[in-house]
Amino acid sequence: MFCHYVVQMTSITIIGAGSAAFSLALTRDLCATPGLWGSTVTLMDISPGRLEIAKTMVEQYRKEAGAELTIRGTTDRRAALKGADFVICCVKIGGYGPLEAERALAEKHGYYRGIGDRVSCYYGGVGAYHQLKFFLDLARDMEAVCPDALLIETANPVFEGATLLTRHTKIRTVGICHGHMGWKRLAEVLGLEEKRVSVQVAGLNHCVWLTRFTVDGRDAYPLIDRWIQEDAERFWASPEYRDAEFPWLIEQISPGAVDAYRLYGLFPIGDATRSASPWWHHTDLDEKRKWYGRDGGFDSETGWSAYLSKCRRAITDIEHAARAKDIPLLTRYPPGHSGEQHIPLIDAMINGRELILELNIPNRGAVPGIADDVVVEIPALVTAGGPQGVMVGTLPSRLMDNVILPRVLRMESIVDAFMAGDRTALVLQLMDDHRTGSFAQAQGMIDALLSQPWNTEAAAHYRAQR
Amino acid sequence: MFCHYVVQMTSITIIGAGSAAFSLALTRDLCATPGLWGSTVTLMDISPGRLEIAKTMVEQYRKEAGAELTIRGTTDRRAALKGADFVICCVKIGGYGPLEAERALAEKHGYYRGIGDRVSCYYGGVGAYHQLKFFLDLARDMEAVCPDALLIETANPVFEGATLLTRHTKIRTVGICHGHMGWKRLAEVLGLEEKRVSVQVAGLNHCVWLTRFTVDGRDAYPLIDRWIQEDAERFWASPEYRDAEFPWLIEQISPGAVDAYRLYGLFPIGDATRSASPWWHHTDLDEKRKWYGRDGGFDSETGWSAYLSKCRRAITDIEHAARAKDIPLLTRYPPGHSGEQHIPLIDAMINGRELILELNIPNRGAVPGIADDVVVEIPALVTAGGPQGVMVGTLPSRLMDNVILPRVLRMESIVDAFMAGDRTALVLQLMDDHRTGSFAQAQGMIDALLSQPWNTEAAAHYRAQR
Repeated sequence: MFCHYVVQMTSITIIGAGSAAFSLALTRDLCATPGLWGSTVTLMDISPGRLEIAKTMVEQYRKEAGAELTIRGTTDRRAALKGADFVICCVKIGGYGPLEAERALAEKHGYYRGIGDRVSCYYGGVGAYHQLKFFLDLARDMEAVCPDALLIETANPVFEGATLLTRHTKIRTVGICHGHMGWKRLAEVLGLEEKRVSVQVAGLNHCVWLTRFTVDGRDAYPLIDRWIQEDAERFWASPEYRDAEFPWLIEQISPGAVDAYRLYGLFPIGDATRSASPWWHHTDLDEKRKWYGRDGGFDSETGWSAYLSKCRRAITDIEHAARAKDIPLLTRYPPGHSGEQHIPLIDAMINGRELILELNIPNRGAVPGIADDVVVEIPALVTAGGPQGVMVGTLPSRLMDNVILPRVLRMESIVDAFMAGDRTALVLQLMDDHRTGSFAQAQGMIDALLSQPWNTEAAAHYRAQR
Repeated sequence: MFCHYVVQMTSITIIGAGSAAFSLALTRDLCATPGLWGSTVTLMDISPGRLEIAKTMVEQYRKEAGAELTIRGTTDRRAALKGADFVICCVKIGGYGPLEAERALAEKHGYYRGIGDRVSCYYGGVGAYHQLKFFLDLARDMEAVCPDALLIETANPVFEGATLLTRHTKIRTVGICHGHMGWKRLAEVLGLEEKRVSVQVAGLNHCVWLTRFTVDGRDAYPLIDRWIQEDAERFWASPEYRDAEFPWLIEQISPGAVDAYRLYGLFPIGDATRSASPWWHHTDLDEKRKWYGRDGGFDSETGWSAYLSKCRRAITDIEHAARAKDIPLLTRYPPGHSGEQHIPLIDAMINGRELILELNIPNRGAVPGIADDVVVEIPALVTAGGPQGVMVGTLPSRLMDNVILPRVLRMESIVDAFMAGDRTALVLQLMDDHRTGSFAQAQGMIDALLSQPWNTEAAAHYRAQR
């Protein structure tokens, strides 16, 4: 194995490594990538307990896989960043508790499922404060400790976060999400063999669209059209759709996704089937069910509960497996690539492999009509020199005018309000919500959110201004 | 007089010259600008009757003023364009009748005062079809007949029209409006002598903001702040405000304008006090009255009626004066500059005078954050070489995110829907209206508008699309 010749390959720091499922996925990828053996992986989390569990699990998996990796753990962020070449951020400040409480509060003010509804979970609370503040602090630490490291931003909101960091810090940032893989589900339902299919997916994070779709080199959009016309109704009446265990398994091929395709001209992919869907699909649970199946989609009251339960189960399983040691981890979680792009990105950069990945990077002309410094999610060529965006070309005007550009504008509002600490800007954002009937309603909503105990710091940040 | 040495100074064609008040204003300006004497003015209108009245009046005024101008009249557009150096477009297709009928229809569908409400009069009906179609046809004729002429677009919507023509034709276009003069009303109420005041106003047409405001070189914004704090309430209770004969005389210094200043950080000027004001100022007549005085502003049911009556009276007066010939026109309408910028623009270009005017021209970096090919309303230096925009600089982020950029996006939607003839794009535009509760409501509204007899051509243009 060539790794033996290399003492120090590269140094990867995972911030928020206590999320066991994600750390396990990255470890599997590292073990399946001998080109990166010899590297040091530093796990960092503020919770000593969760960090210990993650470290034990990662170390055991590595040992079972025979992968040459040095695993370290620390609760000290600056120590974790020291010497890092790559920093992977997967932090969710405060967990999901505050989100649920804020949603309940918002419903009292007339906002079903919370403000920002379909994407509120990604904003990380009012004004996205907690997440953006964390990202900025982390980047400031990196500027001091490892200014040349690449920040791989995988915590939400990726769009706001990566754009903010690109504009306001010196740290090179790449955003990574896995939502673009949703095309596989579409191909499956259409009965297409994955290896014969070639796709391109582009847009903004959680708002990506199928810009190219071919089978054996021939345009496969007509197959979607035929499926809609001939098979969709039957599929939506089938148990596979109607009784799907998890709502996120069927969003990709739901009536809502098909409607978005009709309205905007390209098929929505992954999270876009929900996050970028029109507001009138989401006015209440009945309407959500009409478009997104029994549970009304991932973000509905039942869909989101199912997700949280599944997350909890997955974590319990992993933690149990790590502690029990009765069965090898490799047996429970067989070696192989997880599908996440973080390790392939690092592998390509370190070992000079040329790879096309789906990355969140500044637009710089890839999609005409979007400013250069707005972070888009597009195919990018990764080499030893880092990612270079692929010129996507013009998107349909209905999609640009009604989805992409309004979403860019929302990002600008969120980032501007955050940078200025401007509470009125938050209220004005909410005035744009269709459910807002008066300025007093929006103002009351923002004030109520900012008066919650977990928002004390945010309330001080978003000062009332003239 | 030096004009005697010049046989042909320049050739100015006025399209829609049958609007007597506007043709009179331009004639007054021409008579007060000896540097342009020797020019030919071609009046064009499709109505022979209105054209004849306008021509008689212009010719008589010219004669009384002793101005050396050749006045021609024709109902043939191509003939009118032949040899033109400047083409002034001031056409309102179909007059205001259809607008009123469309507003009444819209109210039945749940849209108080029509779709696009505060600016619907400028859009020229559903999708702005009639006006944009006319502009494009005119520019195509110019490309064939007088490709080097400058088109001075003064018909609404100036923003959509000038951007459309800049992008999709070879004709050089400049938009002109007089709304930016609203600062004079503000200065007056503040008790400031006009000649001591210096201002800059910038933004988009009907959406301009006071970017610089000084008295004797010192920042005068604090005077606005003091007026708001100490004098505004008393002023709004005074007969000057409460009993103002015309609503447009008080919009500039209304509670609505002050609220917009508070919300967005710059004082709105002219039409912006209405067109760019927030939707929640306009939910019903009571709310409009709260913000814009007794009549609820220019666009309310009573305000707009007052405007139409005043227009009709002005036209009747001018036509009567032109026919009666009992009193010299010069006595009724004394010589002097009207305040319109069309003739000063031509004068500066023909005679090489350097002049700062407020023009609608492509942005090209004047306001950061707006694309280069979007037409902005900004101060511009005019010389023999034509207008050159003055770099305005960054506008406040609350103003950009909540007013300017959403208005740019609306322009893009209107222009894209028009160029594509896309009915669904019109429906999607309306889905963005706070009063829209469902897709069916918006679709029904658009279909109802396009089924009106005066919209037959528009209905054929905006085909239903998948």
